[in-house]
Amino acid sequence: MSDTNKLKIFNDPIYGFITIPNPFIYDLIQHPYFQRLRRISQMGLSSLVYPGANHTRFHHALGCLHIMQKAVGVLRFKNVSISEEEENALYIAILLHDIGHGPFSHAMEHSIVEDVHHEEISLLFMHKLNREFDGKLTLAIKIFKGEYHRKFMLQLVSSQLDMDRMDYLKRDSFYSGVEEGKINSDRLIQMMNVVDDVLVIEEKGIYSVEKFLMARRLMYWQVYLHKTSLVAEEILTRILKRAKELFQKGVAIDCSKPLYFFIENKIALQDFDDVTLDKFAQLDDTDVLGAIKNWQFHKDYTLSELSRMIINRDLLKIKMSDEKFSVEEVSKLVEEHADKYKIGLNESKYFVFKGKIKNQAYSKIAEPIRILQKDGELEDVAILSDQLSLKALSKHVTKYFLCFPKQLNKS
Amino acid sequence: MSDTNKLKIFNDPIYGFITIPNPFIYDLIQHPYFQRLRRISQMGLSSLVYPGANHTRFHHALGCLHIMQKAVGVLRFKNVSISEEEENALYIAILLHDIGHGPFSHAMEHSIVEDVHHEEISLLFMHKLNREFDGKLTLAIKIFKGEYHRKFMLQLVSSQLDMDRMDYLKRDSFYSGVEEGKINSDRLIQMMNVVDDVLVIEEKGIYSVEKFLMARRLMYWQVYLHKTSLVAEEILTRILKRAKELFQKGVAIDCSKPLYFFIENKIALQDFDDVTLDKFAQLDDTDVLGAIKNWQFHKDYTLSELSRMIINRDLLKIKMSDEKFSVEEVSKLVEEHADKYKIGLNESKYFVFKGKIKNQAYSKIAEPIRILQKDGELEDVAILSDQLSLKALSKHVTKYFLCFPKQLNKS
Amino acid sequence: MSDTNKLKIFNDPIYGFITIPNPFIYDLIQHPYFQRLRRISQMGLSSLVYPGANHTRFHHALGCLHIMQKAVGVLRFKNVSISEEEENALYIAILLHDIGHGPFSHAMEHSIVEDVHHEEISLLFMHKLNREFDGKLTLAIKIFKGEYHRKFMLQLVSSQLDMDRMDYLKRDSFYSGVEEGKINSDRLIQMMNVVDDVLVIEEKGIYSVEKFLMARRLMYWQVYLHKTSLVAEEILTRILKRAKELFQKGVAIDCSKPLYFFIENKIALQDFDDVTLDKFAQLDDTDVLGAIKNWQFHKDYTLSELSRMIINRDLLKIKMSDEKFSVEEVSKLVEEHADKYKIGLNESKYFVFKGKIKNQAYSKIAEPIRILQKDGELEDVAILSDQLSLKALSKHVTKYFLCFPKQLNKS
Amino acid sequence: MSDTNKLKIFNDPIYGFITIPNPFIYDLIQHPYFQRLRRISQMGLSSLVYPGANHTRFHHALGCLHIMQKAVGVLRFKNVSISEEEENALYIAILLHDIGHGPFSHAMEHSIVEDVHHEEISLLFMHKLNREFDGKLTLAIKIFKGEYHRKFMLQLVSSQLDMDRMDYLKRDSFYSGVEEGKINSDRLIQMMNVVDDVLVIEEKGIYSVEKFLMARRLMYWQVYLHKTSLVAEEILTRILKRAKELFQKGVAIDCSKPLYFFIENKIALQDFDDVTLDKFAQLDDTDVLGAIKNWQFHKDYTLSELSRMIINRDLLKIKMSDEKFSVEEVSKLVEEHADKYKIGLNESKYFVFKGKIKNQAYSKIAEPIRILQKDGELEDVAILSDQLSLKALSKHVTKYFLCFPKQLNKS
Repeated sequence: MSDTNKLKIFNDPIYGFITIPNPFIYDLIQHPYFQRLRRISQMGLSSLVYPGANHTRFHHALGCLHIMQKAVGVLRFKNVSISEEEENALYIAILLHDIGHGPFSHAMEHSIVEDVHHEEISLLFMHKLNREFDGKLTLAIKIFKGEYHRKFMLQLVSSQLDMDRMDYLKRDSFYSGVEEGKINSDRLIQMMNVVDDVLVIEEKGIYSVEKFLMARRLMYWQVYLHKTSLVAEEILTRILKRAKELFQKGVAIDCSKPLYFFIENKIALQDFDDVTLDKFAQLDDTDVLGAIKNWQFHKDYTLSELSRMIINRDLLKIKMSDEKFSVEEVSKLVEEHADKYKIGLNESKYFVFKGKIKNQAYSKIAEPIRILQKDGELEDVAILSDQLSLKALSKHVTKYFLCFPKQLNKS
Repeated sequence: MSDTNKLKIFNDPIYGFITIPNPFIYDLIQHPYFQRLRRISQMGLSSLVYPGANHTRFHHALGCLHIMQKAVGVLRFKNVSISEEEENALYIAILLHDIGHGPFSHAMEHSIVEDVHHEEISLLFMHKLNREFDGKLTLAIKIFKGEYHRKFMLQLVSSQLDMDRMDYLKRDSFYSGVEEGKINSDRLIQMMNVVDDVLVIEEKGIYSVEKFLMARRLMYWQVYLHKTSLVAEEILTRILKRAKELFQKGVAIDCSKPLYFFIENKIALQDFDDVTLDKFAQLDDTDVLGAIKNWQFHKDYTLSELSRMIINRDLLKIKMSDEKFSVEEVSKLVEEHADKYKIGLNESKYFVFKGKIKNQAYSKIAEPIRILQKDGELEDVAILSDQLSLKALSKHVTKYFLCFPKQLNKS
Repeated sequence: MSDTNKLKIFNDPIYGFITIPNPFIYDLIQHPYFQRLRRISQMGLSSLVYPGANHTRFHHALGCLHIMQKAVGVLRFKNVSISEEEENALYIAILLHDIGHGPFSHAMEHSIVEDVHHEEISLLFMHKLNREFDGKLTLAIKIFKGEYHRKFMLQLVSSQLDMDRMDYLKRDSFYSGVEEGKINSDRLIQMMNVVDDVLVIEEKGIYSVEKFLMARRLMYWQVYLHKTSLVAEEILTRILKRAKELFQKGVAIDCSKPLYFFIENKIALQDFDDVTLDKFAQLDDTDVLGAIKNWQFHKDYTLSELSRMIINRDLLKIKMSDEKFSVEEVSKLVEEHADKYKIGLNESKYFVFKGKIKNQAYSKIAEPIRILQKDGELEDVAILSDQLSLKALSKHVTKYFLCFPKQLNKS
Repeated sequence: MSDTNKLKIFNDPIYGFITIPNPFIYDLIQHPYFQRLRRISQMGLSSLVYPGANHTRFHHALGCLHIMQKAVGVLRFKNVSISEEEENALYIAILLHDIGHGPFSHAMEHSIVEDVHHEEISLLFMHKLNREFDGKLTLAIKIFKGEYHRKFMLQLVSSQLDMDRMDYLKRDSFYSGVEEGKINSDRLIQMMNVVDDVLVIEEKGIYSVEKFLMARRLMYWQVYLHKTSLVAEEILTRILKRAKELFQKGVAIDCSKPLYFFIENKIALQDFDDVTLDKFAQLDDTDVLGAIKNWQFHKDYTLSELSRMIINRDLLKIKMSDEKFSVEEVSKLVEEHADKYKIGLNESKYFVFKGKIKNQAYSKIAEPIRILQKDGELEDVAILSDQLSLKALSKHVTKYFLCFPKQLNKS
């Protein structure tokens, strides 16, 4: 394809049009590794609660690319020098930042692979692509790893106010229809500047930053940690765990080849050679959903029952609390359930379990969001805010949950 | 006009369509008292900062009527009994709640009349209309005055989470283009209920309440108290004060007849007989703007200069601070300015002055916003919120300002 | 679950909230037959062109339910009597009108089954559910089949201006980000009325009807028949055809069990017994996508190459024309391609083929859209329109296309 | 003010932010001639029908400036060379294209002045400003007058698909809440290109052009020529005509000084010296509305009654027809009305009159909208369109109307 034909635009209901800035970015988008993101839902199982939330990591990555272009434009307008090479590296880094996500995103980090964080896999993909494309990703990788001396570039890609968060808050609230999560990325970007190689927000943007942090917190509690999504994700993790367990016991497990590879093998970060990465690159939501649909009819009660729950959206009940659930309470329910359904305690624990979720809208330990005051001084937004709410936002909030079958009459 | 023809719909870019629920409401809308609201801007001089903010009190009142209809629908769906008479009274009360606003709203409460609050004038209009329409507004007035035993009805009309606030936040952010102020009135209304004749929000709506309060606070600081609107409003008040002062001194003041009446006479609440009310009913933004346009050419320097500032949007400078400005600092500037322009100190004070603004997003003294918990208990949202931000929101925040001509070289 | 808990609301970015009107509707939504629609994309492979278009038939059906509620409200307000039983039947009929859709919608009607229209399968599902729910769907089925005497009820469910079209135009343009397709369903519904049991649009809604028809035409050409979607759909159909062909020849075909059933068996309408219907009910996009992902590695060149094209979005080229492509031109290309890749002519035809698409925005043969004039007379919108455009809209437009591998240097 | 402070942004609910591209443009915006546009409603009296439509010519001009910046960006991306001087001239020309509008826009062209088109007055203002700003507007004026050799620049400012039309359609439909008028200016601009110094739309944008023309036609019939706006505008024109007539007869007419100047003097284009232009520059909606409010109480029945109609929105009735109303019919009504109210025939004609309106969505005589086909050829969109609708769109449609007091029982 000629380079002119690679200057494509994509439709986006959020930004209108997303322009591909140059032919190399187009080639990356066309790569099967990136095309795979079309089949990975951005919000995992949240569509079980918010039926509009079927958008993909593919679209999110394009959205990030779009606002990165805006940010580069605004910064240059304010006389921050960004070379063409740096500009391109920023586009590559943000485009590929999430390429390491597995099917249904976070849930898989602890069930398909052994605690391998998706960012580590993103980096593996970037290195692989860098070899394929003769070193064209070198600077992007440097930025992504925080090794480039111009620190603000990493902050654009990954920080408490990066292009990633801006796009996902905007996109997730848009598609889920949760108005309260909408943020004004346009204004936030307009207020950006760079001082001493640090990304800052100009003072008159402070309310927008506060709003951004509030929106993020709200999205966490109302959407990302919605109790129904939570229980669905917990069930999903347990389905894969059970499949692995059955496989270990020699029970036949039927699923797609790439998924089978990860059920057969325990894969930790150090196991990720090129073959493994290629297998991983073939995995997407389809493999997991396909397997679960099939496993509804598996002879193992635990596996089939949990699978049926996801497919028919007929989930376990979940109870939330500000206090821990006692071990005794859970054990009692595990036993009751085992009795009722004539299953073992080990199996019963797949249906009755507790856990906790934590959220902190703003971290005071991480790199702060810095406000550029009118006198030229920088200050943490949490200190400048004319009220305590940001201190509150940086509080860790923990909630506890207990899941159990609805047939157990737990009021 | 036949009653069928009175079942009109109005277009609204925010809600789509606003339906007039019955012929009597239509008659109220058609009344000249209400039609006058077409000529009163909802946001006073804010359009000098936000050029899209030209919407009127007329449209706001219709918007309130629309969401009141939604609220009645939701409450009835939840088995709150509301008779047809009560329903109609709610519509009347919300439709007319702001009918007492004078031109450019709040600024006028202290310059055209002598500290008469617009709600008191609204009540005068309602009584007048009640006489005209043979007592059909009696129940609406009772609700509006807080004298009806079903307390939640007043709360729908006037409280910290009433239809008025919902519509104005939504409408003002929509027209000004300040995305951060957008609230989800749909969801807030869906979450409403009535317990023991008190309006409550169901627990799962708590984040929306928080968001609503944050949005309100943000709109105050970013829009309603925007420093440019503030200085414009201060100038406007001073123009009218100067006109009155000149009139007292026998200087000829040219303006429309209704405005002249209020310059000639000091009008306090007790002076509002039918004649005065009728004069007031003829006043709108046109009279004030028309006068100011004319006064640009008045021979009095103070009056003409201040008028010119508004018309050409060439305002005084304003400096904001968290601390009070000293009397000395201001006096010095007053003198400097008097010297420079060869005017008296009294006149100079029209151009150099200080003041303060206060805001509190949520009042703990006023009726609280009550959350209906899952166990059926009610609790103040400020207590229930899983963080301190609401406590912060209820803090009074005061800011001080200093205005002066830009020719004075005050850095 | 208690009936009160079934009065759920769903978030929808388009309408805000969708309310489930009663517990029986909730039960239908919870049924696995309906939950399956969560896994069927509304727009088939259009997301390859419009990356935001991942919405599902599940959400579309809920959207239809929502606007049907609006329509019932408007008609009752205009004194059209609709009994509670009829109301409920309308909700059931519109909710289930598309339940017979197979994976990737229309493409499958000619490849998975043998020319069975999805509406016929919808009816089969309705009958099955009617048996399960003791006859509660009887009236809905009657309406759906056009056997109920109140004709306008069928028109609400299925006509040139039904709730289905309104929702899909609105939803598809929303998710794809194609602004031009947006229609004003609110206004169209406000303008509805019933005269002599016929659904009509009041005269002042005529521009909205014209706009609706234009939008529909535009969506067809720009989105539904977009050349890239078209070629993708053609490839998809050929993949399944090839799989069936290979199966006939005894070549092993690996895929999910439900899909295998439809590859093994030729299923026409008369073959749809309960077993077949149940197999069909297990089929969704996952099965097809999973199979294609797997078939990328099949030893048959045709099957694997076509599969790879879909997965990597590396499609055949497509050329559109207002004139037919000649048989000779196609034959020549088929041969050229066969030569180049050393494959048979039969196989080559999977990669080089022609076809045509037709569209007509408004049919003059079908039931017309009737306008209620001010004098009470009804008239076809195509006649009333003050211009010829509607006549133009009712013209059949045919376009021809030719697909071929991009390696063939066809300019 | 330092030049850096002139790099302002304006909020816009439609585009988000509007950036002022350079300090000179800022100076033009700050000029009293331009600030006056804040007090001229974009849609005249349409807010009597669409209560949200209170936006101003000021905001419209800024909106045009915004999309002109987009257009320049797109064209340069496509390698159309535009020098910095030309760019700036385009901004000036589009910013000032409507600066000659009088109060309530078109209505005034035939009542305040004697058939002077607003574009002629815009040009007078530009020349005046050019003198004030030392020739900085010379190139802009050349473009505006069609005297610059690069023809596409005029087309961007004034043609059948210019920035003016794009912004006003978008803005008017947005504020009035008429969804059907919304157009996709983003896409239209993305599809622009320049061939042989002619502005063209690339072929794949053809549906957007069709949509644009349809939307324009719809806005004309549904909004701009809405019968209530029409009658209001007719009354407004007659009020001013009557005031002039009374003045001629020596009756005292009270109004603002600038308006008085235009009542006193007949002003045709050749009379526009600097004094007249300055008087004109002081006129805005306020003068007209203020006068009408006052004239409600004028002793002349005709003047006061018509004035009251506008202020209380209690208008004449209007009847529309595809056929002319006969002279006899009108005369009979004029007499009937004169009799009933004991007024002269001359006066009665102010209340009973007929007229006609014409509209043509696309002109075949004017410069066509040219489509750039894939083979590089240009063609008129009206010819290329795959249907007849554009031919229809270019048809002149005429409607006739008859206005009369509602007390006359004309069915």
